Amino acid sequence: MKIGFLGPRGTFTEAALSLLQNVDEFDFEPFATVPATLDAVRKGEVKAALVPFENSVEGSVSLTLDQLASGEPLVIVDEVALDVSFSLMVRPGTMIDEITHISTHPHAAAQCRAWLASALPDVKVVPALSTAAAAEEVSDPASRFQAAIAAEVAASHYGLEVLAHDIGDNNRAKTRFILVTKPSSPPAPTGADRTTLVLYMRENHPGALLEILTELSVRGVNLTRVESRPTQQELGDYYFSIDCDGHILEARVGEALQGLHRICAAVRYLGSYPRHDGVLPEKRTGTLDADFAEADEWLQKIRTTGMS
Amino acid sequence: MKIGFLGPRGTFTEAALSLLQNVDEFDFEPFATVPATLDAVRKGEVKAALVPFENSVEGSVSLTLDQLASGEPLVIVDEVALDVSFSLMVRPGTMIDEITHISTHPHAAAQCRAWLASALPDVKVVPALSTAAAAEEVSDPASRFQAAIAAEVAASHYGLEVLAHDIGDNNRAKTRFILVTKPSSPPAPTGADRTTLVLYMRENHPGALLEILTELSVRGVNLTRVESRPTQQELGDYYFSIDCDGHILEARVGEALQGLHRICAAVRYLGSYPRHDGVLPEKRTGTLDADFAEADEWLQKIRTTGMS
Amino acid sequence: MKIGFLGPRGTFTEAALSLLQNVDEFDFEPFATVPATLDAVRKGEVKAALVPFENSVEGSVSLTLDQLASGEPLVIVDEVALDVSFSLMVRPGTMIDEITHISTHPHAAAQCRAWLASALPDVKVVPALSTAAAAEEVSDPASRFQAAIAAEVAASHYGLEVLAHDIGDNNRAKTRFILVTKPSSPPAPTGADRTTLVLYMRENHPGALLEILTELSVRGVNLTRVESRPTQQELGDYYFSIDCDGHILEARVGEALQGLHRICAAVRYLGSYPRHDGVLPEKRTGTLDADFAEADEWLQKIRTTGMS
Amino acid sequence: MKIGFLGPRGTFTEAALSLLQNVDEFDFEPFATVPATLDAVRKGEVKAALVPFENSVEGSVSLTLDQLASGEPLVIVDEVALDVSFSLMVRPGTMIDEITHISTHPHAAAQCRAWLASALPDVKVVPALSTAAAAEEVSDPASRFQAAIAAEVAASHYGLEVLAHDIGDNNRAKTRFILVTKPSSPPAPTGADRTTLVLYMRENHPGALLEILTELSVRGVNLTRVESRPTQQELGDYYFSIDCDGHILEARVGEALQGLHRICAAVRYLGSYPRHDGVLPEKRTGTLDADFAEADEWLQKIRTTGMS
Repeated sequence: MKIGFLGPRGTFTEAALSLLQNVDEFDFEPFATVPATLDAVRKGEVKAALVPFENSVEGSVSLTLDQLASGEPLVIVDEVALDVSFSLMVRPGTMIDEITHISTHPHAAAQCRAWLASALPDVKVVPALSTAAAAEEVSDPASRFQAAIAAEVAASHYGLEVLAHDIGDNNRAKTRFILVTKPSSPPAPTGADRTTLVLYMRENHPGALLEILTELSVRGVNLTRVESRPTQQELGDYYFSIDCDGHILEARVGEALQGLHRICAAVRYLGSYPRHDGVLPEKRTGTLDADFAEADEWLQKIRTTGMS
Repeated sequence: MKIGFLGPRGTFTEAALSLLQNVDEFDFEPFATVPATLDAVRKGEVKAALVPFENSVEGSVSLTLDQLASGEPLVIVDEVALDVSFSLMVRPGTMIDEITHISTHPHAAAQCRAWLASALPDVKVVPALSTAAAAEEVSDPASRFQAAIAAEVAASHYGLEVLAHDIGDNNRAKTRFILVTKPSSPPAPTGADRTTLVLYMRENHPGALLEILTELSVRGVNLTRVESRPTQQELGDYYFSIDCDGHILEARVGEALQGLHRICAAVRYLGSYPRHDGVLPEKRTGTLDADFAEADEWLQKIRTTGMS
Repeated sequence: MKIGFLGPRGTFTEAALSLLQNVDEFDFEPFATVPATLDAVRKGEVKAALVPFENSVEGSVSLTLDQLASGEPLVIVDEVALDVSFSLMVRPGTMIDEITHISTHPHAAAQCRAWLASALPDVKVVPALSTAAAAEEVSDPASRFQAAIAAEVAASHYGLEVLAHDIGDNNRAKTRFILVTKPSSPPAPTGADRTTLVLYMRENHPGALLEILTELSVRGVNLTRVESRPTQQELGDYYFSIDCDGHILEARVGEALQGLHRICAAVRYLGSYPRHDGVLPEKRTGTLDADFAEADEWLQKIRTTGMS
Repeated sequence: MKIGFLGPRGTFTEAALSLLQNVDEFDFEPFATVPATLDAVRKGEVKAALVPFENSVEGSVSLTLDQLASGEPLVIVDEVALDVSFSLMVRPGTMIDEITHISTHPHAAAQCRAWLASALPDVKVVPALSTAAAAEEVSDPASRFQAAIAAEVAASHYGLEVLAHDIGDNNRAKTRFILVTKPSSPPAPTGADRTTLVLYMRENHPGALLEILTELSVRGVNLTRVESRPTQQELGDYYFSIDCDGHILEARVGEALQGLHRICAAVRYLGSYPRHDGVLPEKRTGTLDADFAEADEWLQKIRTTGMS
């Protein structure tokens, strides 16, 4: 049984695999890009795949959002969140004062700016395509770079030595990764769940988003993230990518989804799954499953007997 | 089979009885007051009762609203609307220039003010408890009144002669009457239906009414009448009496009622019944029964297969 | 300086006059009906007038609402609330067991039903046009009535003796009276104020009331009473009579009124005035006058400098 | 007078400079990154800067959003939209069948996938840091790449020859660029304007976004783009980046901004500026400047005279 992940080996995504449950049962296979990783699930080459979804510093991973919003349907079945900790790594034996050129991804460079300015003010930082690619490059003795900034896990993969740990300026930075499979019945609700959706409007009319939010809020469902993403038709023509609290098997979420389905041109369900942080949502009075069940009985009684 | 009505004979309510369907099958019995008429239904003395609900000049009949809002439950099963046409009636043989004192209900006097000012400027108008009571009084040859203003139907009941027809200033005035029974399954939807409800708030908090209206509007149900009525507890403590378009057997109305039931302290259903005017409501896209059914299938499929 | 009131002498309205401030400076004059009382203000015959507005058992006084909603504009400048306490009164010397017929207004009869059933089960209660009229009738030694149920104040006016005090079933019943003048600048805000409005819709479209409530709620203004009142055009064609918390000189109320003015066919202002009970409204964060003033400065600064 | 832009020369941003008005009056200077370009404005090294804001295929440029949301304030004063047209370019004399390796930015590779699969199925595409960097690389005769995919403008900059024009799969792809300056009074409204804002919530409470949208919609302001962007504090803690129709000098937009300012922890104004496409917004009845002015006079009159 294989799980794909956004590679190469040594990325934060690989580090996040260890946070999954029952991880020993699986083999892991890296793929070069987010689309390639997701397509491996679609083609059945892997049973599931772990890809980054959003980062507390950089925001959503647009490519992940857009790849899930179109093409063969996939669903999110789990999520994990990883502390994003950057390390400075070198070929074994290199001393810190020998470093003149560092390779890393521009985001990593940006997130370590203060440490670099203080510890290595004169060093030149050159952008690489990923932090793992930077580590790989540095592992080549012929490289013009003496050091890479990457995830700790990259050091062991590429035979490097860590000279400085946790050099990011924001030491609370985290990335949320999602585990994606082919469509299947959702995992059981835990009480602390999240549901991810893609919504296409009937027409781009004023007030469209207000209508969407009202469908959610009237059933006590809280929207936690919303993004206008391009439909790739016209500049300014968007679909909405949203996260909300709750699970599709809950009555309040189910009814809200039905409402969205009725007012939207299309709703793509991307999964209900446990939150990584186990935070329980506040539930407004009258929005528990029991409240919905009781209201249903009440209505059926009136419809039959006229008695409320 | 008996139908009660707000008497005495000769009132507009009696005139409205003729607008009911299958009217020949029934015997009619007048009751002295709205509470007495409704209680006759509650006690099973009559199978149904016709009482006034609102008038296009005077507004709602508070007593009817409040009597339906409390006590043993009753439901509205039909409505009719009657043109309110006032006539000047006298004992046979009386000439118009003999009239010095007219008896009538204050509302009728108010609604005939212009005609009286022009046709009988010097006559004294004295208030009676109902237009029918005025007619009855005038029918007594010993009365100090020469004329009554009442519904045309009162003339034949009390042996009077109509001297002037349709003397109301607003000749489009109408009263809506409701036919009330013990709770029973609602009449079949006609497409042009009305639903009447009584809502008690959990607490009298800011925004309570906005929440109620949102529950209706999000399902495409239009509120057509709303009134704050006293709960008889504290001054300023109200329940809401509302009418909305649609029928409880429609999915949009049913779901809206469930929503109200979940957010209100109590919802009393007062019936879904055909509108007297047959006006079809505008239905927003996505709010037909078929749309709800389709959304339900869609949700069940996702819940089972994960596929939207 | 004269204040008119809904007479005759001996009504609850007269009793309520004593609750007005600086009452000794004024002379009081009764008028026969609500329209007559209000017209006396319009014509300048009295400087102000006190009329009943709503009762905690019976609800709003429709005639007062409708008379204020049309005709020459008037504004409410104060309100008082009176305990509605009914007394059984007789001609001096009459004993309770001599009573066979009682005269009173039907509302009073309804509100004393339990006491009557227990204390005077066999007595006949006959409806009168007002409680004061009943007292006046009883004061005539030739009357067929031995007793009246009326406000305590009626006893002294008509030379009657009170046999039983406070016989109403609901001893918390209260009536709210309003003091009305020609339009004038509003009284100073007290912090515990009420504003009364009449709203005519542009067209009777679905969601009209939701739009109105949103204009209020977005500025933190709480609607406390709403009533669909007939426009007297077509059955089912309404204007809204509303009360909300707050004073027109408050920024939040002023902006809400401007919003209503922009979306309604017409808004008639009926006054901002101190609540009789001095209850302070909850004010949502960001809705104080200081918040509006600060937001205004903030906006002007951006408009001038581009700096937020 | 200098305008900075996101370099290097040969990028789409440089091509977009030609769409600016009065372009001949300015000198243009490239900067290596979005932060560097914006900081050049902050430091006064350039008077204005052009940076990409969003693309119809890739969505928003997160770095631009986040850099404007924090740091020294900047405002957007204009926008232009450029067709994103990709060309295949080579060192002069290279024939198409000599191409074995192409360098380009991953986004460009993704957007030309279909053309590449059909025209050059066996060629290897290697990611570069920008399309201009790819062109520069190819211009080096020692490069291992025979061709680059880049903006047409890059060919002339780097002495390359275009072998195939407009090879993107989506030939309607467009990028919107914004012209940014230090805070200054906004450009005059054109009637077809856009306003960009950054909103920080008081607390991340349920319904927060609904409140924001209501502040806009109640004044007839249409939100056209919304994105949850990380505050960089906690994963799941967001600010909102939004675009709406209209100009801060319009009354409806001004009042909506005041409303947002009162309910948000902070509102950062990022500018009101003409839309690149000149599309006029639909304005709801009652939301023109004249309507606001009239409502203001109306309110002042009531506050002074009590007369509505």
